[in-house]
Amino acid sequence: MLDKTFIKEKLKEFLLEDIGYKDLTTDNIENHKSIHATIIAKEDLILAGIDFAVEIFRLLDNDTKILFQAKEGTLIKKGENILTLQADSKAILKGERTALNILQRLSGIATNTKRYVEKIKDTKTKLLDTRKTTPGFRAFEKYAVTVGGGYNHRFALYDMVMIKDNHIKLIGNIEDAVNQIKNRVSPMTKIEIEVSNLDQLKQALKTDVDIIMLDNMSLEEIKKAVKITKQKKPLEVSGNINLDNIRDIALTGVDFISSGSIIHASRWVDISLRL
Amino acid sequence: MLDKTFIKEKLKEFLLEDIGYKDLTTDNIENHKSIHATIIAKEDLILAGIDFAVEIFRLLDNDTKILFQAKEGTLIKKGENILTLQADSKAILKGERTALNILQRLSGIATNTKRYVEKIKDTKTKLLDTRKTTPGFRAFEKYAVTVGGGYNHRFALYDMVMIKDNHIKLIGNIEDAVNQIKNRVSPMTKIEIEVSNLDQLKQALKTDVDIIMLDNMSLEEIKKAVKITKQKKPLEVSGNINLDNIRDIALTGVDFISSGSIIHASRWVDISLRL
Amino acid sequence: MLDKTFIKEKLKEFLLEDIGYKDLTTDNIENHKSIHATIIAKEDLILAGIDFAVEIFRLLDNDTKILFQAKEGTLIKKGENILTLQADSKAILKGERTALNILQRLSGIATNTKRYVEKIKDTKTKLLDTRKTTPGFRAFEKYAVTVGGGYNHRFALYDMVMIKDNHIKLIGNIEDAVNQIKNRVSPMTKIEIEVSNLDQLKQALKTDVDIIMLDNMSLEEIKKAVKITKQKKPLEVSGNINLDNIRDIALTGVDFISSGSIIHASRWVDISLRL
Amino acid sequence: MLDKTFIKEKLKEFLLEDIGYKDLTTDNIENHKSIHATIIAKEDLILAGIDFAVEIFRLLDNDTKILFQAKEGTLIKKGENILTLQADSKAILKGERTALNILQRLSGIATNTKRYVEKIKDTKTKLLDTRKTTPGFRAFEKYAVTVGGGYNHRFALYDMVMIKDNHIKLIGNIEDAVNQIKNRVSPMTKIEIEVSNLDQLKQALKTDVDIIMLDNMSLEEIKKAVKITKQKKPLEVSGNINLDNIRDIALTGVDFISSGSIIHASRWVDISLRL
Amino acid sequence: MLDKTFIKEKLKEFLLEDIGYKDLTTDNIENHKSIHATIIAKEDLILAGIDFAVEIFRLLDNDTKILFQAKEGTLIKKGENILTLQADSKAILKGERTALNILQRLSGIATNTKRYVEKIKDTKTKLLDTRKTTPGFRAFEKYAVTVGGGYNHRFALYDMVMIKDNHIKLIGNIEDAVNQIKNRVSPMTKIEIEVSNLDQLKQALKTDVDIIMLDNMSLEEIKKAVKITKQKKPLEVSGNINLDNIRDIALTGVDFISSGSIIHASRWVDISLRL
Amino acid sequence: MLDKTFIKEKLKEFLLEDIGYKDLTTDNIENHKSIHATIIAKEDLILAGIDFAVEIFRLLDNDTKILFQAKEGTLIKKGENILTLQADSKAILKGERTALNILQRLSGIATNTKRYVEKIKDTKTKLLDTRKTTPGFRAFEKYAVTVGGGYNHRFALYDMVMIKDNHIKLIGNIEDAVNQIKNRVSPMTKIEIEVSNLDQLKQALKTDVDIIMLDNMSLEEIKKAVKITKQKKPLEVSGNINLDNIRDIALTGVDFISSGSIIHASRWVDISLRL
Repeated sequence: MLDKTFIKEKLKEFLLEDIGYKDLTTDNIENHKSIHATIIAKEDLILAGIDFAVEIFRLLDNDTKILFQAKEGTLIKKGENILTLQADSKAILKGERTALNILQRLSGIATNTKRYVEKIKDTKTKLLDTRKTTPGFRAFEKYAVTVGGGYNHRFALYDMVMIKDNHIKLIGNIEDAVNQIKNRVSPMTKIEIEVSNLDQLKQALKTDVDIIMLDNMSLEEIKKAVKITKQKKPLEVSGNINLDNIRDIALTGVDFISSGSIIHASRWVDISLRL
Repeated sequence: MLDKTFIKEKLKEFLLEDIGYKDLTTDNIENHKSIHATIIAKEDLILAGIDFAVEIFRLLDNDTKILFQAKEGTLIKKGENILTLQADSKAILKGERTALNILQRLSGIATNTKRYVEKIKDTKTKLLDTRKTTPGFRAFEKYAVTVGGGYNHRFALYDMVMIKDNHIKLIGNIEDAVNQIKNRVSPMTKIEIEVSNLDQLKQALKTDVDIIMLDNMSLEEIKKAVKITKQKKPLEVSGNINLDNIRDIALTGVDFISSGSIIHASRWVDISLRL
Repeated sequence: MLDKTFIKEKLKEFLLEDIGYKDLTTDNIENHKSIHATIIAKEDLILAGIDFAVEIFRLLDNDTKILFQAKEGTLIKKGENILTLQADSKAILKGERTALNILQRLSGIATNTKRYVEKIKDTKTKLLDTRKTTPGFRAFEKYAVTVGGGYNHRFALYDMVMIKDNHIKLIGNIEDAVNQIKNRVSPMTKIEIEVSNLDQLKQALKTDVDIIMLDNMSLEEIKKAVKITKQKKPLEVSGNINLDNIRDIALTGVDFISSGSIIHASRWVDISLRL
Repeated sequence: MLDKTFIKEKLKEFLLEDIGYKDLTTDNIENHKSIHATIIAKEDLILAGIDFAVEIFRLLDNDTKILFQAKEGTLIKKGENILTLQADSKAILKGERTALNILQRLSGIATNTKRYVEKIKDTKTKLLDTRKTTPGFRAFEKYAVTVGGGYNHRFALYDMVMIKDNHIKLIGNIEDAVNQIKNRVSPMTKIEIEVSNLDQLKQALKTDVDIIMLDNMSLEEIKKAVKITKQKKPLEVSGNINLDNIRDIALTGVDFISSGSIIHASRWVDISLRL
Repeated sequence: MLDKTFIKEKLKEFLLEDIGYKDLTTDNIENHKSIHATIIAKEDLILAGIDFAVEIFRLLDNDTKILFQAKEGTLIKKGENILTLQADSKAILKGERTALNILQRLSGIATNTKRYVEKIKDTKTKLLDTRKTTPGFRAFEKYAVTVGGGYNHRFALYDMVMIKDNHIKLIGNIEDAVNQIKNRVSPMTKIEIEVSNLDQLKQALKTDVDIIMLDNMSLEEIKKAVKITKQKKPLEVSGNINLDNIRDIALTGVDFISSGSIIHASRWVDISLRL
Repeated sequence: MLDKTFIKEKLKEFLLEDIGYKDLTTDNIENHKSIHATIIAKEDLILAGIDFAVEIFRLLDNDTKILFQAKEGTLIKKGENILTLQADSKAILKGERTALNILQRLSGIATNTKRYVEKIKDTKTKLLDTRKTTPGFRAFEKYAVTVGGGYNHRFALYDMVMIKDNHIKLIGNIEDAVNQIKNRVSPMTKIEIEVSNLDQLKQALKTDVDIIMLDNMSLEEIKKAVKITKQKKPLEVSGNINLDNIRDIALTGVDFISSGSIIHASRWVDISLRL
């Protein structure tokens, strides 16, 4: 789970985006104490974000009671209950949209990720996300990937080194790029380098990097890369991953497959709230 | 366009999410002054967010120069140039991902919205978005809808009244709901009410609301609703809008069709940056 | 009422403005648990802001108990009790000034507004406020207007269109101004236009605006404007409204009278706290 | 002058309160580069806040040029020019209300303060403000007092000790109150004590306080207090100061007269902007 | 004690610095409810910051119970217990480092300050800190000085006037410097002037300053300064104070000795947490 | 270098801590344009933080010119110039203390770190810092370590896994601890485990951790640990490192030595500013 202090600050920010100084509808009608509300799946989905939804209502009404809560990461069938709570009508009506926006987006990502993970679950390959996330919402989206069975790649520019083609161009060659950064960065930080052909791969294998990313290579090239590498370094495949090709790539024996689309091409799943 | 002060604060927040205290890769290599970089469409798209991308690089390097900038809202063909700029290599490498995340998401929404708008462009019906947006990113996503030819529904709970079924339930009936809120809210605020059947529509027509939303009605019901309403009030249709049914609905003569999916079901378009 | 999340963030900011890192007097003496304190009206007033005062003390002492609380919006006579609470002496002494500043300012506005509203209560005209508010404190001041029986005009530049003379000048004429903005703005947003003579009024009546503001017109002109308009559009009168002329203006039959001075010319009412 | 870093953060906050994500009117029309605008006094006033107004426009348009700027603290006659500037039409129209709100409020305070100061300018008595200020706007309001010729009392609870009747009650007596706090507070901090009768004054004179405040005493009592004190400690008079009694009080020879109403009973002066 | 609202905002900021969006270790293992933890002194120390440590754990777990808490400001012997609490294992493991960082730093300052204070406890001289503090952490460090028996000099540039040699240079001479500032600043603000030789001292004595600082003078000069001053003004000695010379300086009869090193040369004391 | 956006936000926060709404001394005297100021070393030191000092003055005066700037990380001898700049007197006087506080603290850390690094520079061992940093100031302090030739250990709880004895206790044993976390954490994140005896070391060697920390072991134990490990995993030594024992520990052949005291036991170096 994400950290609670962090989550609360973000959820408050999200509520203020939607409510501002006043909900002109709900804050202009009478409040009703202790109303029941139920959140229901309107299609099959892998549930992600349930604790955030609960926290949304708690922020709006301290005394919110949870009567039923489905388990994060499980399959919820169409029509099944996700959450039943009891709270002020004000809290329910004002928090509804923000809670659903989070649940629909995150469960959408978890559901989508799961589909990819299923394809490769009997292989040694791990599915990774990328930094292609909605600005301001990254921690949530990356969390949803783990709920769906995927793993997180680096969270941000500050927690791992990734030497991309543009970095190599600026420095001149792979060896210098690795050495220069290795010499300055924390030894506790992993260093990955992106290579786009087998020549670059061979150069990278001579350096002290931790991981090598094969960028946009064909299946044939990937197979050759695996052979060349002989497991001396973990290999990551990136670029145009889809449900049709992911299994074949995994079967080449690469360690990681990373895909931006498990997050950014996920569609929201349908979830609604009833009083 | 969105307000510049607002935009700058948000973009700074987005940069800090991705960079934090340091980009461990780029901040550990030499900076190169005045590098050229080009952003290119890798598929056909309606461009949205170009000014935000420019501002991202300006925030990282005051002296960023724009050598070419495509026009917001226009069709950019696969392979065409979107932006050419000259800036510090640090600024380009550190801003690349955030700038692309914004451009890919917003152009994706504009491109998707355009498809819907094209279907109804010869009708009087306007396409509207909803509050189903990514938390923290709403202003950007709603802006992209307008770039694609759509219109914004209310921005948030603070700028319009929308009386939904749950509000009606709490108050008891449509007439009281409208009167109670009308009596408290600013006369400068529009009031819309959601009805789910023709009986409710008839009750709503007797009140002083500004707009009536037909929620999840069939095409047949919508047609009847238009007849009953006789243009006394603007009508909005909402619920399960897609590219197949939008034109038929528009041809019934309703004033507005609102769709959450023009935002939340948009996929990112493919855009990349080259040094 | 205003939204609670919003209110708490603002009240915390106000407390930090006055207390900073330490109250050098109160934080240097012994705390006494469960002290009683009473807030009393020292002149007749319409009470506004009582919930904010309570929240101030709650922020400083979670366990604050309210023993008596007068009703928001009612007339409190000189010498009458407004609030009796029980809390840590620290909370009472540190929150006193901020709580009173809010109560005195807001009750002053409500009391002043009420005087204007009384003059026109038997007419159909509604009294509106303006955006002439103290920077950073708008939501509170506009809320106090509603407590005093007035209505809010637009809250800010983001929730309504108001085309003023300067906008018209830049665009060239009234028709183009309305059309240009109408074409871009959300159909859920009301559009008002400001006219300063009857010619402009006639032009405005030909457009699709929602409301027309008669800016600084004489009583005679206003009467003519009402005749010309024939209730085709709601009319708002603005400029130099006072207790002497408000009734005559209302009797012309205009829909709205807006006045900045109900907020900015209000004086604080006298309220004090006793242990 | 106030500190520039502080000012900029506050002004940005004020602009965001009024503009939010977008000015629906101005941001929906064409921008015009380098428009001239003039701010004019519509009644006689003492000018305060001119630098803040300029900064508002600079924040909205970096390239704002100042063609004329009246001098802070001087008398501006009705009809006279306060500021002429050249900037983007967007900056002028979006900043207008916030700039005027600040100028009208602060010049109102300076003008009001000046009236009080004039009454006592040939005496040794200094006029002080209090902490009765609009929440969130204190630094600006207190600054305006100094522009009008008054002096600031403590800014907040963190920069001076003021032992009020409630503090004395909690501790038991004046001597203990002074000693207890004296023993803990920075020796660089002045300590003032509030007394409400001559007995308390005599006790206070035996302590090591820096200033004594005579709270709500009659003119006769004040005269006696001055005699008793024999200039051993500076005396401050507080409570119900007005233009009629301020001179008589000053002539008793007290060092300071403090008045909340120079701030909170100031009315805004009339100032407008023309393109 | 420092103000609680202020403290909570700062401690939240400190926790976010260390935890960010997630503690990758603790947030990836099972939480255990109601674990006991003990904080123990690993060397003799004067305890400072215990309430902040408690608040850290409360922020992470509302239900934290305190089973034992040593008294702020007392001597804790090596091996003695400082705090025993019961809380979620998550709260303990995630708050441990931040709580200890605060306790070790503040107790280090209190312990160091105490050593200086002991040297002069039988004199009339008070030991003061300076503004040489860690950026962002000043309120805490200055608080620790008072726990160790020292007093605070001014907190910041906003709560006292200190005319230093550079200010005098810019204005021209001591008399003008004092008069110019005296004329503008609040009469509730103390004014101190820094002098570096006896001539300057004599000039300063003719002005209306509240305190005179003898900057970097020799013991002989200080003695002469005391004679010249004849207690007409409080004197502060500053510059190169250490445990060897502080007593001799105090014995000259000066009122204050200020030392930056009681804060910035303090080393952390050793404290650890055990489950 | 640290990221510029991050740095600017932090430096603004530091300036506001010291200046608040106004510098009562400097903001009450005349500003002088284009004054020269020089920052000088008053003892030998390794310079760290020079870019932050420059940025401080730039934030206060956009037009600050740098006439001389010593090189970060170099030895500056007593009396030598560190920085000569030209700026408004206001900027210099108001920024002086904050700039010096940063320079003195960071150069102190760099100077101290260098001493440790010198002792082991001919070995393969790298010196690491820890998370024992001043709350709110970590990025700066850790940066200074790298300037002094040390390396950073993990920055925070969010960028690396460190399984400490308390984590092991909660889970039960080393193997389960590693497996449980390994299964959830990003494969891009290094995992380190803390062992306190050779038995634990042997267990740790059987797991898939990236680094093993020998916690508080004697030199003899460390030697045995190196033998047992046979370079299968990098070893880090932690606990009570000082200038006397660091070389002997390094000569055992361990990969890393981590020390909190290179940061928290650093004393400030003496640096001053002259006009």
